[in-house]
Amino acid sequence: MAQPTNLTRIGLAGLAVMGQNLALNIAEKGFPISVYNRTTSKVDETVERAQKEGKLPVYGYHDPKSFVQSIQKPRVIIMLVKAGAPVDQTIKTLSAYLEKGDCIIDGGNEWYENTERREKAMSELGLLYLGMGVSGGEEGARHGPSLMPGGSFEAYKYIEDILLKVAAQVSDSGPCVTYIGQGGSGNFVKMIHNGIEYGDMQLIAEAYDVLKSVGKLSNEELQSVFSEWNKGELMSFLIEITADIFGIKDDKAEGYLVDKVLDKTGMKGTGKWTVQQAAELSIAAPTIEASLDARFLSGLKEERVEAAKLFKSRGLDSILNDQHQIVDKKKLVDDVRKALYAAKICSYAQGMNLIRAKSKEKGWELKLGELARIWKGGCIIRAIFLDRIKKAYDRSPNLANLLVDPEFAKEIVDRQSAWRRVVCLAINNGISTPGMAASLAYFDTYRRESVPANLVQAQRDYFGAHTYERIDMEGSFHTEWFKIAKQSRV
Amino acid sequence: MAQPTNLTRIGLAGLAVMGQNLALNIAEKGFPISVYNRTTSKVDETVERAQKEGKLPVYGYHDPKSFVQSIQKPRVIIMLVKAGAPVDQTIKTLSAYLEKGDCIIDGGNEWYENTERREKAMSELGLLYLGMGVSGGEEGARHGPSLMPGGSFEAYKYIEDILLKVAAQVSDSGPCVTYIGQGGSGNFVKMIHNGIEYGDMQLIAEAYDVLKSVGKLSNEELQSVFSEWNKGELMSFLIEITADIFGIKDDKAEGYLVDKVLDKTGMKGTGKWTVQQAAELSIAAPTIEASLDARFLSGLKEERVEAAKLFKSRGLDSILNDQHQIVDKKKLVDDVRKALYAAKICSYAQGMNLIRAKSKEKGWELKLGELARIWKGGCIIRAIFLDRIKKAYDRSPNLANLLVDPEFAKEIVDRQSAWRRVVCLAINNGISTPGMAASLAYFDTYRRESVPANLVQAQRDYFGAHTYERIDMEGSFHTEWFKIAKQSRV
Repeated sequence: MAQPTNLTRIGLAGLAVMGQNLALNIAEKGFPISVYNRTTSKVDETVERAQKEGKLPVYGYHDPKSFVQSIQKPRVIIMLVKAGAPVDQTIKTLSAYLEKGDCIIDGGNEWYENTERREKAMSELGLLYLGMGVSGGEEGARHGPSLMPGGSFEAYKYIEDILLKVAAQVSDSGPCVTYIGQGGSGNFVKMIHNGIEYGDMQLIAEAYDVLKSVGKLSNEELQSVFSEWNKGELMSFLIEITADIFGIKDDKAEGYLVDKVLDKTGMKGTGKWTVQQAAELSIAAPTIEASLDARFLSGLKEERVEAAKLFKSRGLDSILNDQHQIVDKKKLVDDVRKALYAAKICSYAQGMNLIRAKSKEKGWELKLGELARIWKGGCIIRAIFLDRIKKAYDRSPNLANLLVDPEFAKEIVDRQSAWRRVVCLAINNGISTPGMAASLAYFDTYRRESVPANLVQAQRDYFGAHTYERIDMEGSFHTEWFKIAKQSRV
Repeated sequence: MAQPTNLTRIGLAGLAVMGQNLALNIAEKGFPISVYNRTTSKVDETVERAQKEGKLPVYGYHDPKSFVQSIQKPRVIIMLVKAGAPVDQTIKTLSAYLEKGDCIIDGGNEWYENTERREKAMSELGLLYLGMGVSGGEEGARHGPSLMPGGSFEAYKYIEDILLKVAAQVSDSGPCVTYIGQGGSGNFVKMIHNGIEYGDMQLIAEAYDVLKSVGKLSNEELQSVFSEWNKGELMSFLIEITADIFGIKDDKAEGYLVDKVLDKTGMKGTGKWTVQQAAELSIAAPTIEASLDARFLSGLKEERVEAAKLFKSRGLDSILNDQHQIVDKKKLVDDVRKALYAAKICSYAQGMNLIRAKSKEKGWELKLGELARIWKGGCIIRAIFLDRIKKAYDRSPNLANLLVDPEFAKEIVDRQSAWRRVVCLAINNGISTPGMAASLAYFDTYRRESVPANLVQAQRDYFGAHTYERIDMEGSFHTEWFKIAKQSRV
C-alpha cells in the first residue's frame, strides 16, 4: 500500500460504511488520514474507494501499531465501531500504542455513561477522550454530517479545524458542529436527536395514515402532497425522502414499493434510552414515547392480524364505517399539514427540555439554540423548522418551553383547530394518531392553569397519607378522608 | 418491657406506620411477634398500640441482638424500611446475629435487582431472602394487605401459614397472597401493580375532568356518579374513595376540600421504573406512560399558570368556547363510564404483558391469572374487574393480550363508540384526556392488521440502509431509494 511521505493528520478505526464514508470525507477536505480495521479487507476496500473517488489521501494499515505510528502527534483517532464491548476492545487495541496527550474519539451511538467511564479511564493514562454524535447516515458521513463532540475541550480544539470542514455547511448559519460540553454530553445530545427523529418519523407516518386511510389519497397524490409540503414550513430531509418514497415503483411486482414494505419497524436503542431518560429526569415526553410504542406494536404483526380478524368478526369495522364522513381532500391535506406541524413543535419542546434537564443535572451548560443550529444541516432531522427553534432560544435563552415562545405560540393557535379536527377524524375512523394525540394532550395539559391532579393527590393522601398542598394557603396538609367519610355515611 | 415466655414466631424491623400496622396484623392473627426499630421510641409506641388494640402478642426490643435472639429458629424477620441504602444497613445490623437457615424478608417497594443482589449475598452466608411486595397502604397493612412474596421458596413455605392469615381474605377466591416466583419477581410484580395504579388514578382523574369541565357536574353530582359507578363494572377501591373525596367539606374554608387541593401530584419511583422497564422490554405501555407524564406536568404549576395566561391572551379560550356543544349530562356520564372502563382494560393489558415479558426473560414462570386473583383484595387496585382478568387467563393462560379475550373484546366493542365520543369531546373542549386517548390509540393500533410502519421502515432503509421485509415474499431487502428517486427527477 502507498505510504504517506509525512505523518498523517488523523486516524480512523472501524471501516463499515459509516467509517469509510467519514474517512473519505475527511480526506476530501484536505486532511491526510490513516485508516485501520480489524478485518483487513475493509482497509483495502477503503483505500480503493479513496482512489476511485478522487485520489484522496487515505492510507491503510493492517496492524494497529503501524496505524497508530503513522499519525502525527498528538495523535487523534476516530473510532466508528459498534457501541458497547467493541468500543472497549478497540480502545484496548489502540491505547497500547498511544502516548500521553493522544486522543480517541468515539463516533458511535454510545450510551453517555460509557463515554464518561472511558474518559475517566483514559485520563488516568494521560489520554484524552471525546464522545461525538455523528448524524446524517451514510450520505451525511460522506458529504457532511452534523457532529456533536463532547468531552475533552482540549482535544476538541486540536481537531476543530477538521470538524469545521467535515461537517455539513449551512449557508446562513455555518458548519454543523460545535463543542457540545463536558463528559458524555455529545452522546446524550445525539441520543435526544434520535428520540426527536423517532417522533418526526411517527408523526409523518400518522399524516400518511390519515391521508391514505381516511382521505383515500393515492401514492401519486401523496408524493405530490409531500413535495408541496417540502416547500413550506415543514421543509425537511424527512419530508423530502417521504415524497421520494411514494414515487418509487416496485421492481419485483406491480405497484409501488412502499405498499410492499412490511409494516414492522426496527430500532437500535437510542429511542429506548430517550424514553428511559425522560422518566429518570421527570420530563414529560409523550410524543417520543408514542413513537417508541408504535414501533413496539408494529413488531407484533402476527398478533395484530389475529386481533383484526377477531374485532372484524365482532362487527367493529361496520360500526366505524357508519361514522365515516365525506372528506374534502384539499381541506384534509391542509388540516393534516397543520396538525403535523403543531405536533412537531410539541415533540421538539419535549426533546429540548430533556436536554436542558440533563444539562442542569450534570452541569454541562448546554446551549439549546446552538444545538438547533448544528441540526440545521447534515443530520436526519435537518429542517427549516430548526431555525425557528434557534431564534426562539436566541430571543430567550431560558425559555421554559418552546410552546410559550411568542412565535411558536402564534403558530399553534393558528393551527390548533385543524389539529383537533385531524385527531378526532382519525379517532372516529378507528385509526387513531398516537403521536399527534399525545402532542395535543401535552399542549392542552401544559397550557392549563388547573389540571385534575388535585384529585390524584387527594387519593394519594386518602390511601397513603402522602399529604397535599393547598391552593389558598402555604404548608403541607393531611386529612383523615376515610374517617370523615365513614362518619358522614352513618 | 414484657418478654414472651417462649420464643416468638417471627420478627419485624422498621416501625414506621406500615411496619407497625403489619406487626399488629400478624399478632392479631395469633402469631407472637418481636419488633425492633433503630429509633427506639417507635418500639415502645408499637408495643403500646398492641396493648390498646387488644393486648396483642407484640414484644419490643431496643437492641438488634436481643431482638434476633427472641425469635424461634429458623428465624424470619420482615423489614419495612425505606428502599435502597437503609435496607442494606438493616440487613447488615440483623445478619450479625442471624444463623444459617434464618431468613430476611424485605417488605418495601424495592427495585427488583437490589433484591436479587441481596438474595445472592445472603445465600453465601447460608441465609434465605424474600422480596415481598405489600400493597394496601396503612389500612391494608393493618387489616389485610395483598402480599407478593418472591425469592426463596423454602423461606416462603416456612411462613406461608402466617401470610395466608395476614393477607386480605376474599370470599370467593381466598387469601390475597401466593408465592410469586424466584428472585426479585415479588418486587417486580408489585412495581407493575403500582404502574397499573398510576394508570387507574389518571383515568379516574380524566373522567372527573370531563364531567366537571365539560359536563359542569358539581361535587355533589360527582359523588353520586362515582357512588353509582361503584355498584357496577367499575366497582373498586379507587372509585369508592373518589366518591368519598367529593363528599368531604373543607374544614378550613368554604366549599369542598378537593377544590382546595393543589393540582400537583407527587410520586415515589415505581411508576418511573415501570415506564423504564416497558422501554427495556419492548412492551408498549402508553396509558401508564401518560399517567406518569401527567404527574410530571402537574408539577409544573407555575409554568402552567404562565402558559395559560399567554394562550388566553392569544385568544385560544374563545376559539375553544365557540366549539362547545350542549351536553346531555346523563348521556355524558354514561359515555364517560364506558370510556373509563374500556381505557382501563387497555391499561391492564399493558401491565400484564409487562409482567409476562419479564417473566419470560427471567424464567420466573409467573401465573398472570393468579396475580389477578391476589389483587382482588387488600391492594389499592382491588376491583371486581380483576375477577374478569383472572377468568380470561383461566380460559386461556397464553392469551396474547387481554384485548383479544372474547369477553373483554365484547365489552370493548360495546363501549368503543362512547369511548371515541368522550376523547373527541375532551379534545374539542381543549382539555384532552391523555390516558384515555393513549388507551384508545393502543387499542386501535393493536387491532389493525396494517399500520403505517411500512413508511417508517422505508425511511429507515432510505437514510440508514436498515433493510426491510416485504409483505409478499420472504427475505430482507434493501433499495437504493435515493438513487432511484434522483434518476426519476432528471
